[in-house]
This record gives sequence, C-alpha cells and structure tokens, in this order.
Amino acid sequence: MAGLQSLTRDTKDEPGLKSNFDVDYVIHYKIPTTDTAEAEAALVQLIQALASVGFATEVRNGGKSSLLVFTKIASDKLLANQVYRYRVQDWLYGVRASAPNKDLAKYFEDEPVTEAERLRLAYLLITKPKNEGGAGISPKIGQWKHVQSVFPLHDHAFNRQWIKQWSTKYYLDESDLNQIRDRFGERVAFYFAFLQSYFAFLLFPAVFGFGAWLVLGQFSWFYGVVNCLWSVVFFEHWKMKEIDLAVQWGVRGVSKIQHPRPQFQFEREAQDPVTREIVKVYSPLKRFARQLLQVPFALACVVVLGGLIVSCFSIEIFITEVYNGPFKQYLTFLPTVLLTVFMPTFSTLLTRLAERLTELENYETHDGHQASFVQKIFVLNFITSYLGIFLTAFVYVPFGKILVPYLDIFQLTAQKFTIEGKALPTKSWQINPDRLTKQIIYFTVTAQVVNFATEVIVPYVKRRVTKTAEKVSKISEKNGATLKDLPEEADFLNRVRNEAELDVYDVTVDYREMVVQFGYLSLFSVIWPLTACSFLVNNWIEARSDAMKIATSCQRPIPWRADSIGPWLTSLGFLSWLGSITSASLVFLFTNSKDGPDGSPWDIPGWALLLSILFAEHLYLAVQIVVRNVLLKLDSPGLQKERAERFTMKKQLLEQTLGQDLEDESHGPGLSGGEKITRETLEEEARQLSVKGSASREELFWQRQRSAGETIQVAQTLVSEITAVNQTKAIK
Amino acid sequence: MAGLQSLTRDTKDEPGLKSNFDVDYVIHYKIPTTDTAEAEAALVQLIQALASVGFATEVRNGGKSSLLVFTKIASDKLLANQVYRYRVQDWLYGVRASAPNKDLAKYFEDEPVTEAERLRLAYLLITKPKNEGGAGISPKIGQWKHVQSVFPLHDHAFNRQWIKQWSTKYYLDESDLNQIRDRFGERVAFYFAFLQSYFAFLLFPAVFGFGAWLVLGQFSWFYGVVNCLWSVVFFEHWKMKEIDLAVQWGVRGVSKIQHPRPQFQFEREAQDPVTREIVKVYSPLKRFARQLLQVPFALACVVVLGGLIVSCFSIEIFITEVYNGPFKQYLTFLPTVLLTVFMPTFSTLLTRLAERLTELENYETHDGHQASFVQKIFVLNFITSYLGIFLTAFVYVPFGKILVPYLDIFQLTAQKFTIEGKALPTKSWQINPDRLTKQIIYFTVTAQVVNFATEVIVPYVKRRVTKTAEKVSKISEKNGATLKDLPEEADFLNRVRNEAELDVYDVTVDYREMVVQFGYLSLFSVIWPLTACSFLVNNWIEARSDAMKIATSCQRPIPWRADSIGPWLTSLGFLSWLGSITSASLVFLFTNSKDGPDGSPWDIPGWALLLSILFAEHLYLAVQIVVRNVLLKLDSPGLQKERAERFTMKKQLLEQTLGQDLEDESHGPGLSGGEKITRETLEEEARQLSVKGSASREELFWQRQRSAGETIQVAQTLVSEITAVNQTKAIK
Repeated sequence: MAGLQSLTRDTKDEPGLKSNFDVDYVIHYKIPTTDTAEAEAALVQLIQALASVGFATEVRNGGKSSLLVFTKIASDKLLANQVYRYRVQDWLYGVRASAPNKDLAKYFEDEPVTEAERLRLAYLLITKPKNEGGAGISPKIGQWKHVQSVFPLHDHAFNRQWIKQWSTKYYLDESDLNQIRDRFGERVAFYFAFLQSYFAFLLFPAVFGFGAWLVLGQFSWFYGVVNCLWSVVFFEHWKMKEIDLAVQWGVRGVSKIQHPRPQFQFEREAQDPVTREIVKVYSPLKRFARQLLQVPFALACVVVLGGLIVSCFSIEIFITEVYNGPFKQYLTFLPTVLLTVFMPTFSTLLTRLAERLTELENYETHDGHQASFVQKIFVLNFITSYLGIFLTAFVYVPFGKILVPYLDIFQLTAQKFTIEGKALPTKSWQINPDRLTKQIIYFTVTAQVVNFATEVIVPYVKRRVTKTAEKVSKISEKNGATLKDLPEEADFLNRVRNEAELDVYDVTVDYREMVVQFGYLSLFSVIWPLTACSFLVNNWIEARSDAMKIATSCQRPIPWRADSIGPWLTSLGFLSWLGSITSASLVFLFTNSKDGPDGSPWDIPGWALLLSILFAEHLYLAVQIVVRNVLLKLDSPGLQKERAERFTMKKQLLEQTLGQDLEDESHGPGLSGGEKITRETLEEEARQLSVKGSASREELFWQRQRSAGETIQVAQTLVSEITAVNQTKAIK
Repeated sequence: MAGLQSLTRDTKDEPGLKSNFDVDYVIHYKIPTTDTAEAEAALVQLIQALASVGFATEVRNGGKSSLLVFTKIASDKLLANQVYRYRVQDWLYGVRASAPNKDLAKYFEDEPVTEAERLRLAYLLITKPKNEGGAGISPKIGQWKHVQSVFPLHDHAFNRQWIKQWSTKYYLDESDLNQIRDRFGERVAFYFAFLQSYFAFLLFPAVFGFGAWLVLGQFSWFYGVVNCLWSVVFFEHWKMKEIDLAVQWGVRGVSKIQHPRPQFQFEREAQDPVTREIVKVYSPLKRFARQLLQVPFALACVVVLGGLIVSCFSIEIFITEVYNGPFKQYLTFLPTVLLTVFMPTFSTLLTRLAERLTELENYETHDGHQASFVQKIFVLNFITSYLGIFLTAFVYVPFGKILVPYLDIFQLTAQKFTIEGKALPTKSWQINPDRLTKQIIYFTVTAQVVNFATEVIVPYVKRRVTKTAEKVSKISEKNGATLKDLPEEADFLNRVRNEAELDVYDVTVDYREMVVQFGYLSLFSVIWPLTACSFLVNNWIEARSDAMKIATSCQRPIPWRADSIGPWLTSLGFLSWLGSITSASLVFLFTNSKDGPDGSPWDIPGWALLLSILFAEHLYLAVQIVVRNVLLKLDSPGLQKERAERFTMKKQLLEQTLGQDLEDESHGPGLSGGEKITRETLEEEARQLSVKGSASREELFWQRQRSAGETIQVAQTLVSEITAVNQTKAIK
C-alpha cells in the first residue's frame, strides 16, 4: 500500500513515489466484459478528444480489466494561454482588481502559476463541453460511461513533508493554509481554514467551560449566555474571515463564475433576452414543484429515523429502568446494537434518496446542485444527531411522569411473558435524570472517537485486507499474465493503479462533521460544559487525520476554487440561533427542577419558559446586530489588500483616462481659473451682439459685470449702500 | 407671492417667472449691521473663489441687508470636463458599467447632461474644498458665516406643468418619476418612487381591510396574518424595486461615493496605510463614547414625551370617565390642548438635541451624519406616534382594573374640591373599550388631515401674512430707498428674493411621515381594518401636496443622487417585524375579551399569549426568507439592463484582450489541436536527446507513444489483450 507507508518511509525506498512523470491527469478506463467493441471505439474517441485540445497522451494497462490514460498539457504555450484566458475572465467577473499584464513572460514571473491552478485548468480543459473549447469528457455519463475517474496524482514527497510538519505543530498558521491552497485548491484550503479558525475559537469555551463545570455546574444560565455570545462572535467572525481569506487568495467572487453541470437536462433552448445567446432552459416552476418534494423527504426522515430513535429509546428505557429479568446485562446493549445496525443503513438509504431528489431538481450548475444537496443532508444529520437529545430533554424528562401509564404497557407485556410459570421480574418506573448528561457525553466524546475510527482506521484496514487478497489473486494471475510493465515504469504504474482504486475526497463529509459538532456545542453544551474541551482535543486530531485521509486514503482532489464554506454557513447560522433557544429552555427547565424532576410538567410556568426563550432569542438577535456592526468596522489584512489593489488600479485608470484632459484644462477654463476676460473677448462679444441685433435679456443680465473684478466693485458699492441705509435706520 | 400664484397664472402675467437668466446658483449673502468691513472682505473672497473655479458672477441687491450673487458655469467646456470627470469616477466606483467614451461630442449626444447633473456638478464645484479643485464655500460655516444659502432657481414653467399634470392623474408612472429625477435629482425622485410604490401597494390592504371590516370585524387574526404577509411582501418588494430603480437611473452604488462633511473636525492627520494619502482621523473610540449618549437620549425621550403622554392620558381618563362636575364639556379638551401645545415644543427641543448629538458624533461624511440623525429621529417619532396607543392597548385595557385603586386618588382629590359645600360629582370608574379604536381613528384620519394642514396650508398663510407685512414696510422703505433694480430685471430679482426667503426642502421630513404611517398600518391596523383606506386617500393627496410644497414653499432642492431610501429602510424593516408581534398580541388580548374586558388580566393565559407572539414572529421571519428568495429569482427591467450592459462591456473587453491571443492560438497548439507531430519534430527531439546523452525516465515515459495515433494503436492492443484474458477466465 502506497499510502501510509509512503509517509513513513523515504522515497528512496520506493522509487514509484519519487516522481509523477509530469502527468497532469490519469483517466481510469474500465473495459467491460461485454460490448468491448463499443468501449474500444469510445476509448479511441477519448484519446482523440484529448489530443484535439492539446493533451499529450500515453496509455498503459490499469489492471483488473482497465486502462490508464495518462495526459499532460502538451505545450507551455497552451498552458500560458489558458491561464491568461481564465485570469482575464476573473478580472471581468470582478474577482481580480486588475487586468492581466499583456507582457506574459513578465506577468507569469510576478504571479506564477501554482500547481493547483495548472491542475484546475487542465481539468476544465478535459471536462468542458466541446463548444467551449474543452474535450467534453464527463466521467460515468453517456458516451463516457466507461470512464471511471479522472484524477491527478498525489505528490508523495509533498504529502510526507506535510503530514510530518503538521503532526509536530500545535497551531496551523497562514503559510500552512497557503500550502494547502497551492496544492489542493481553495475549496480544500477553506475547509482547513475553517477547521483551524474553529479550533482556535474553541480555546475560549474549553477554558471557560472547564471553569463553569468546576464552579457553576450544569445548566448554568451564565454559561448559557456566554456560550451563546461566543457562538455569535465565532459565526460573525468567520463570515468576515471568510471574505478576508477569499481576498487574500484572490478568489473573492469566484462563486459568481459557475460551472455548468453536465448532467443538467434542458427542456428547451431559448435566446437570452439580454445577451442574445442561446441558453438551455428548464422550467423553474417544474423545479419548484420538485423542490417541494423536500417536504415529504424531511417528513420521511423524521418518521424513519425518528421512529428508529424512539423505538430504541423506548426499548432502552424499558430494559434499563423497567425490566429486571434475566440477561439484563446483555439486553442493555440491544438498543445500541439496533441503532448501530439500522442507523447507518437508514442514513445511507436516505442520503441516496437525497442525492436522487437533488438530481431530480436538475440544477444548471454545480453550486446549485451542491447547495440543495447540502440542505437535505443537513436535515438528515440534524435528525440523526440531535433528535435523541431533544427527546430526552424535552419529552422524557419533563413529561416522563405522564408517559408512565403508556410505559406500563411494557411492564404488563413483560409480565405476561412468564418463565417457568413465574412472571418476569420488573422494577417500578423512575425517571433517570442523568440520562441527558450521559447522552451528551456519548455524543461529544464516544461518538467522536468512533467517528475517527470509522474515518481513518476502518478504511486503512479495509484497504489492507483487499490488498492482501489482491496480491494473492495477482500471483495466480501473473502465472498466466500477458501484460507486463516496463521495468523502469513498474513501480510508478503500480502506485497509480493503487491511487485509481482510492475513494474520491468529498469535503462535504468533513464539513458536515464539523457543523454537527458545532451544533452540539451551541445547542446542548449547557448540559455538560466540558463539551468544548472534548472538541478541542478532537479537532486537533481531526485536522491531522483529515490531512492524512487526503494524503493516503483518497485520490488527490481536483483543486477547485471557492470563496466561502458555501451552504454550510447557513447551517452554522441556524444552529447558532437555535442554540439561543435551546439553551434558554434547557436552563429554565432544569434549574427549576434541580432536585430531580418531581413535579408534574404542568407545574412549570409556561409563560416564564416562553418569556425566557423570547428574551434569549431577542438578546441573541440584538447581540448579533451589534457584533456584526463592530466587526464590519474593523480592518482586516485581506480587505486592506483589496483596497490597496483597487486604489492602485483606480489611480492608474484615472491617470490614463484623465491625463489628457487635465492637460487640456490647463489651457481652457478648467480648474485654474475662469474664462479669461480680455479686451479681445469683450470686443468679440460686442461684435456678435451687434450682428444678432439686440441682445436678449439673459445676455444683458450676464454682461452687466464683465469680470469678477467688476462684480467685486459693484458688490462693494452695494455693501456700502446697504450699510448706509442700516445706519440711517439705526439713527432714526 | 410667486409660489401658488405662479401655478395658476400663466407666465405671461408674471414675466419674472419666464426665465432663470441662465443662472445656475444664487448665493444669498447677508450683510451684518456690525463688522461690515469683514463681511465685505469675505464677499470679495467669495467672488474671487467662484471666479477662480470658472464661474461667471453677477451681484445684485438682495433686499433686507443682503446681496444676491448669481453664478453660472462660465464655459461649456468646463462643464463637459466636469461631467466627464465625474462619470469616470462613477465608472471607477462601479456605478457605471463602462468607461465614458473619449469622443466627447458623440458621448454627450448619447448620454445628454440633465439639468440635475449640471446643477449637482455646479454645486460640488462651489462647495468642494479648494485642494480638490472646488471653491470651498460652505454656507454658514467659518469664513462663510454670512453666506445664508446657496440655492438653484425654480423652473417655474416646469413646476406649473408638473403640478397640473399630477393633479389630473390617478397614477404616477415611470416617466413622471424620470421627470422628477432629471430636475430634482435621484434623492427626491426616490422619495416619490417610494411614495408611489407604497400607494400602489396600499390598494390591496385597503380593499382587503374594507372587506375585513365588513365581514370579520376588529381584531381578526385572519386580517392580522394577511396584513403581516402584505407588509413582508411590500418591504421585500421595495428592496428589490429600489435596486431596480437605482440601476435604471444609473446610480446603483453611488452611496459608496461619499461626500465629506465640511463640519467634520479631525483630531490628527495620518497616512492611510493603503493609499499613502493623508487622511483626517477622528478616534472611533471617542465617537463610540459619544454614540453611547444615544442611550440617555432615548431615555430622555421616553421620560419627557412618555411623561407628557401619560399625564394627558390620566387627565383625559379622569375627565371623561371619572369626573362629572361642571365645565366637563370644556375640560374634555384640556388634554388635547396640553398635547397640542407641549408635544410640538418638546419634539422640537428633542429634535434639536438629536441634531446637537449627531454633530457631536462628528461624522466624516454626510451619509454617516444623516444615518445617525435619522436613527434618533426615528426613536423620537416612535415614541410620539405609538406610545399612546401602546399604553391604551397593553396597559389601560388589560390592567385598567388593577389601576382603579390608583385612579381613585383622582376621585378622592376631586371630591375634596367642593363647590358651595357640595362635593364635586364623580362617576364610578369603568374601562372604555372603544378608547383604542377611537385613538387609532384619530391617528390615522384626523392626524393625517392636521398634518396636511400644517404642512401645506399653514406655511402658505404664514408667507401670505409676512408678505403683506413686508409690502407695507417696503412701501415705507421705498420712500427712502436708494437701491433700485433695473426695470428689465426687477420682476426676476423680486422673484429670486422671494425664493431666497423660502425654506430648504428636507426630504427626511417627508420620509418620516410615510414611515410613521406605515408603522400604524403594520403595528395597529388589526384594531381598525379601515386604516389602509384612509392612508390610500391620504397618500394620493400627499404625493401632490409634497410636489406642491417643493414647487411653492421651498427652495429648489440641490439635486443630490441616492441609490436607496437610505436609513429609512431599516426603520421600515423594524416596523414590519414589530408588526408581527403587536398584531399577534393585540388579536390574542382582544379576541379573548371580546365582550368587554371583564376579567382580571391575570386570567389571560400568559403562556398562550407568548406562544402566539413567538409563533407569529417566527412565521414572519420564515415567510420573509421565502419571499426574499422568491423575489431574488425574479428578473426586473433594471437588473436586465444592468446585465445587458455588463455583458456588452465584458464582450468588448474580451475581444480587446483576447483577440490577439486567439489569433496566436490558431497557429500554436491551442484549441485547434495538439502540437503537430511531424517527422521533423520527432527527429529534432531525437537529436536533442542524443545531445543531452541519456534521456530521463520522464522523457522516456512520454515518448513511448509519440502521437495520439500511436496511443490509440497501443490502447486497441491493450483492449484486445484484456478481452482475451477476460474470455479465458470466463471459459475457465
């Protein structure tokens, strides 16, 4: 396995990792067992399409009935041209302040092409439709259904150094993020920037939470208020930081440059009323109708996942708090087992459903598609992650007493089952007030560890196993093998074959994890103020394990650009806002029943609960406005850079456009003074008047005082006259 | 009086109105009775300053110890230069999509200079500081303290036609607004556009409200919900409309171009870190400290105005509902008289205080100053306009019963006053449930009429009276007069002297009126659904009376630009949001006590009230998000125009910047195909390799398949080999 080992061993040990052979992209092409003729024809088309847009190609055996087509941009000139073209586009969209310099050699010296930029442009060249000058290759779609993937090769030397560096560092700084950006593009860099920013911000609630845990205990309103304030500040700060980073990385506004989805199916073609271009149209009403399917989808999520959670919850309560019969110690695990088995299954099914729904909504652009998908995923995760706690906090604890009679059904049922004539022993029902805390600790500590395991360790083991299995089969295959690699390429090709089998890195999954985590902190950390401490530790590891995941378990990601964390921002804002409500109600519910929930829930004064919610929410909104305005006034390095760029550009342009006129002005009437009134001009005016005959009233009006000097004289006369009149009046 | 008469009579009757003598601006200069020497020196400087930036000047006697300095931009070339310069600035700030054409003659034909643009530039030339190329004249400040005002002259012919047209039209369309824009600038045009848009939107609640009044009665939840929805739609629609108008008028983004306030006092000068320009700095912390004075200001408003309202309220209740003694019919008017006398006095005082506070905050720009002032004015008006109703609705009616014992003090006091040995007759206390409705009707009908009167009729009468008084004094003055006008100018000068005495038009006052009105509709119209009908009628008149006010009672406004209704937008949003809360609580409070407020307020279930508020508010916020997203998807003529402009500009620029490269590409590797592989290039490569000695692994890798053709051949071989292997496997 090239992955983990490559990080520990030196490149010298494994020559296949030393070089990427200048390959830009590898296209993994599966040869099907049937219909080979068609696959072959498509393969020929593929190579022709690549060659026609300027790629050099090499083909090699890919193992397991597949081929590897290696491509690189054939000439530097083509690359330079592409870079120039896209930078001009950026400028036109307002992403860059200034147009690229026409002197290309000097320009590329000033602003060199990063690896990420080169790879992005190469990918666009491969995937763009033919009429836009690309090869039009879209993996797994239509004509290209045998194209398994198009992926760049990992730079193992960089990866090794990267992981090594990060694992010995406490804190990631800007240069670390810039490194990621130059290699994996802004989209991935934004994730790490967010993670880092979140990690740094977690320090405060971790320290404060630890103090609160020691001093204030659980359900402290003071902790709740501080936690809400913190989440507002964090959210608003990130919104600014995001813009700042986007400016520093020169990607502010790139979300305006949309990439069309090849899967988009148009209904008809129409002419854009503005640009007169032919555009593909899909009825927005139809899309809206399909978007409405989100409502039954959300309901389905609630019913399926909610049902599962409620069932397991009931079983758990029954077993731990009612049931007292045999096998209790084993049966206690039953709900956990059920949840562990069914939850991922249902989640996967519903995620697939969400994918199908989003495809059905048929968006024109990648971003539109992604945003809609993220929205659904958020709903799904909201339910799987928080519903259990909501049930415990707002149903089980306050209404437990009322639910007792219904739970008696369990008891009665249990008593019906008789073992050897004796009824099953049962306990009498009691609410377990520690349940909520236990649940939170499970979600904030145990689940994070499990997550780490499933994310990093499981794939590693899985790959390990399949690798061994493959080796066995390969040995058997080799006996009858006809396809041999050239000795100097063998290592390299082996490594590429490994990379071809890896998963595609999906940054959405990592964002989801962090957003869900933020939710626990914002919504429920009043229950257990140590939450942030656990997250702080977890996120330090998370950043490294995510880096490891990219470096070893995934194909190198396509270095897309981004100017924000996208739709997740909305989710963060929503969780932060909801936090003000849940914190207020948790504090209210649980401080009033500190000594155990003895009273009936109807004893809790509803108006006071609602008033505290209302108050907390509006305080939150007010603070948000204040924080936003304060942050807006602060200057940031990114914004300063932008301002400086725009200023330079404006100055240059002003000089260009106005330079000539300023010269003109110095001769003309311009700024330096009024029209010079000379004897000649006056005589000329008089002549013109005599030619025209009599002067108009207007002309006469403006000729009473022929120059500023005359006006001043008249004015002085008038002033002295007025003064005289005033004085006579005063004397009278 | 030139004003109203000029609108009814023909210009032939009054030759002074026929022409403005090409005057751009009139500067009204007061000659003080003391210190005339200094005033004279300043006057000379004034004329010199004007002449130095290119103004022609004429001076005339202004009457009442004042002079009138007439100015016009001396040459067309200077004007053209200024227009060009400011249009370039607009372009640099992103207000215009394209840079002005360098061929000025053609350019001004395509985009002629409107009167508003000419006057705006002339005003900027007069008032800009000297180092920015202006004359640096700021009325009433420092050196220019004797400059009373700088104002343009009304175009009476236009005004007459304008008022005539509007008073016969039901509905103002775009061309009417464009007319306003061309004459009075976008700031005034935006007010009328808002008024018109609001008027059009009022049609729905007027009709629906009338229906609701007939069918549903007062305090209908259905009316409340519809009313809130309407206010959301109106607010969000206006936000879009505003952008649309700004684009159509070519002013989108002009708020970024800030005009410095001459009154701004800087603490120190510093170098901008970005632009290296010297900027004037005032400590933001100091300003923040001063901004905090808004809190005591708001408290003072509440105490002073609130106290007045509560006092009058108590007196009124006492007189109408407790007191039963003599003079009752006259005493009923006492609170009204008190309110009428004290309210405007206090309001004026507090407004002046708000002005002082805003000046103390010392903003760099006009817009900053204006926004801060508007905020204070809004607080003030919120209290004067709505506090009374809030008191009735949320204190008097629900808590009346509890307040009875305190009001008994009145009764006891009253009974102590004895007339001829008999105690004053008193009634027993009863809550008057109609009070609220009466109050609303007063504010929405009576107050609007009164407003109209004070706005239009009172100033007219006032001017009439002073004019007559002046005429009398003028006759007596004329006897000893030394300053006579030339006969052909006399009419004109008389008219200008009249205009010099008029008020400055302040669009803020009109906005305030409309925003306060919107507040009644949004906050309280569930009390009386006919509210919107009254406003519909009122606003039809309002538009005309405001036009009249501008045309006759005010100096012609400086035609400033604007790209929105500015800080009032926030106020509208606030009122619309608050409306969801007040409507919900009013409906809840008053439908539960429909048969008169018999029960104690403690009978009202607090949790239900709060729940309905919470529900209504969140419904409001959710609907707002939906409406906003739906409206964002709609195309509007303005946005289409902008898109078209930007598209054209981009296309042109692309052609300019890329044209050359596209040519290059057709020769190079570019889009048309890969690097041509010919015998010669291969031989050349081979030669180079032999020169270098042995080829590197990378070079060898890419030379296995020398062309796409070779790659295809190899690929085909590989496919057939793989197929063969697959088949043998299948056979096995």
